[in-house]
Amino acid sequence: MGSPGAHDNSARLSEPAGLGWLGARRLQPRNAWIRGKTERRGGPGRSCPSADAPPNCRDGSRGLQLKRGVVCREQGDRLLFVERLEAHRHAVETRLTHLLAARRSGPPAVARLAEAMRYATLGGGKRFRPFLVIEAAALFGVPQTEALDTAAAVECVHCYSLVHDDLPAMDNDDLRRGRPTVHKAFDEATAILAGDALLTFAFEILGRPTTHAEPFVRAELVLGLARASGWQGMAGGQMLDLEAEGVPQEADGIAKIQALKTGALIEFSVKAGALLGRAATAEQQSLRAYARAIGLAFQVADDLLDAEGTSVQVGKATGKDASAGKATFVSLLGISRARTMLRSLAADASNALTPFGSRAAALAQAADFVSNRRS
Amino acid sequence: MGSPGAHDNSARLSEPAGLGWLGARRLQPRNAWIRGKTERRGGPGRSCPSADAPPNCRDGSRGLQLKRGVVCREQGDRLLFVERLEAHRHAVETRLTHLLAARRSGPPAVARLAEAMRYATLGGGKRFRPFLVIEAAALFGVPQTEALDTAAAVECVHCYSLVHDDLPAMDNDDLRRGRPTVHKAFDEATAILAGDALLTFAFEILGRPTTHAEPFVRAELVLGLARASGWQGMAGGQMLDLEAEGVPQEADGIAKIQALKTGALIEFSVKAGALLGRAATAEQQSLRAYARAIGLAFQVADDLLDAEGTSVQVGKATGKDASAGKATFVSLLGISRARTMLRSLAADASNALTPFGSRAAALAQAADFVSNRRS
Repeated sequence: MGSPGAHDNSARLSEPAGLGWLGARRLQPRNAWIRGKTERRGGPGRSCPSADAPPNCRDGSRGLQLKRGVVCREQGDRLLFVERLEAHRHAVETRLTHLLAARRSGPPAVARLAEAMRYATLGGGKRFRPFLVIEAAALFGVPQTEALDTAAAVECVHCYSLVHDDLPAMDNDDLRRGRPTVHKAFDEATAILAGDALLTFAFEILGRPTTHAEPFVRAELVLGLARASGWQGMAGGQMLDLEAEGVPQEADGIAKIQALKTGALIEFSVKAGALLGRAATAEQQSLRAYARAIGLAFQVADDLLDAEGTSVQVGKATGKDASAGKATFVSLLGISRARTMLRSLAADASNALTPFGSRAAALAQAADFVSNRRS
Repeated sequence: MGSPGAHDNSARLSEPAGLGWLGARRLQPRNAWIRGKTERRGGPGRSCPSADAPPNCRDGSRGLQLKRGVVCREQGDRLLFVERLEAHRHAVETRLTHLLAARRSGPPAVARLAEAMRYATLGGGKRFRPFLVIEAAALFGVPQTEALDTAAAVECVHCYSLVHDDLPAMDNDDLRRGRPTVHKAFDEATAILAGDALLTFAFEILGRPTTHAEPFVRAELVLGLARASGWQGMAGGQMLDLEAEGVPQEADGIAKIQALKTGALIEFSVKAGALLGRAATAEQQSLRAYARAIGLAFQVADDLLDAEGTSVQVGKATGKDASAGKATFVSLLGISRARTMLRSLAADASNALTPFGSRAAALAQAADFVSNRRS
């Protein structure tokens, strides 16, 4: 991580090529960012005509004209967030497709391995971690295009973890993102190797000069991703999770498992953006607090989905935690208190972003998105 | 890789701390290096008394006084090489023990994962790849101590590949280095995660500033190791190897599998030394030719061991290639021609080192060691 004051983002404040409206409004205040896709009805300060106000609008005083029609500001924010998430998702998938495309050549057996890597990586998903990388980097003026490879590397690690987690010797899952898991669609050996190759590929991406011009940043990204994914991070959390089945846990114990299994990679996603942007120490600390809250919120929401969602809705088997006797926030607190915890964490995440003001609108909305997610 | 002429090793030519006789004789000519552990009997040019000459000494004219007794120069070289290999092996194991020691803390489940990582990594092995890293780096004046972390990272990747390769869904081996494989000693889930964590840990080591002071070198090491281990390297080779069972192969096909499965990491080990030493392009090319020959020789020797050795001698199950219907150099060429190929490759490897003169004595002897290995 760069020393405070050592960074200079001035060169990055100009409009990046090929970024479109996301980039153009990157550093504008929140209202301006919203105005970029909206048109205020009746001018500032005027009430939204009640006939146009959408039914669940809590700030009916301000109507916004989105391309989808008239909505209140709150709904407009959410819709713009979803569009933004979708735009990043599309960009990351395009980049992953390109990065993995070179792997079509070679002997048939290797082509099959590459096919399994693509199946594991390009088979849907919200791309929430890449979103965090891109948006955290954008806080410091880094264009989406310059954060895409790092975002893709993080997604490769996330996807590898799903492939190995689904294996018969692990969670033994048949369904992931609404499709057969990799070992079902291919075979177990291919799934093990595809996971290994995706994990390795993440570090190949981060080592490339095209990911960041400064070797120091590349080396720090590697170190951060390795720490987040390894024994002290995700792999350790997966081990804890496996061993915790049928063992009573306190909330602290569940939080510890989550912090490693899910939280570490989410935290690194935000940190990666800060590394790309050469954030100062105080900025890193604020982002760390945000990332920890959002990471925990992500897991609480996951537990709620496992308890309440259907497999069609969620895209993977549900109700597994209860049948495996696994302690979760829901089993410990009940659904109502878990929901309260989720809202509280989302508020903590938003509060941690205060120093960034309106620049962090998208990250703040991500906290809201996490606490309301349905898949 | 640094540009030619950009490196300056002068600061590294002084005696490194804590390196002992290996470092002290690092840059001395071959004869001087041998004299470091020997005492010539009767002075230069005098014949070794026939009574003292060991039975299979082919250059009976020169006897050497080693601490093990009187031997001819040829045997003396070999014994000194074995001592050198052993010294590096010991140093790497000490370093790996230290690097993995921090992983004793944490919750019991994570401690179990760490224990499996140690079991996989510290359970014997020649440490041939670390030897190559250290000796290739020494060519450019890099002390052993400064190459140890990179050597340890390469060994972590090698050990992870063995753990995953032994899994029931892969080669389904019960024995490795004379002990139960990791999934036998622990369980399958732990073996999968321990392999994942070791692979990840290798990149954590390479990302650390303690591995090399220059971020550029760290980033290049990461990129090189990832390429050697991933789809285009070891993982791709493992996939090829699995798919090749029962399928007739030509020598080229076997060589292709080997080049990826075994050769890529051996080649990277040598390249890593060159990266640490900021070798010039021509030097890198010579080392690449050496590494390719020695990598292929390593696999031919492995095939011979599988065909001829006992499991006690080799430390893992033997005769597996034939029973799996797997094409090998031995099944294709027969034992005699495979031995001829091995000798030819060892000679190619030595020839590639010509530009380095006597400085490359240990690497040249490594080629001989590979072609004569018995485990």
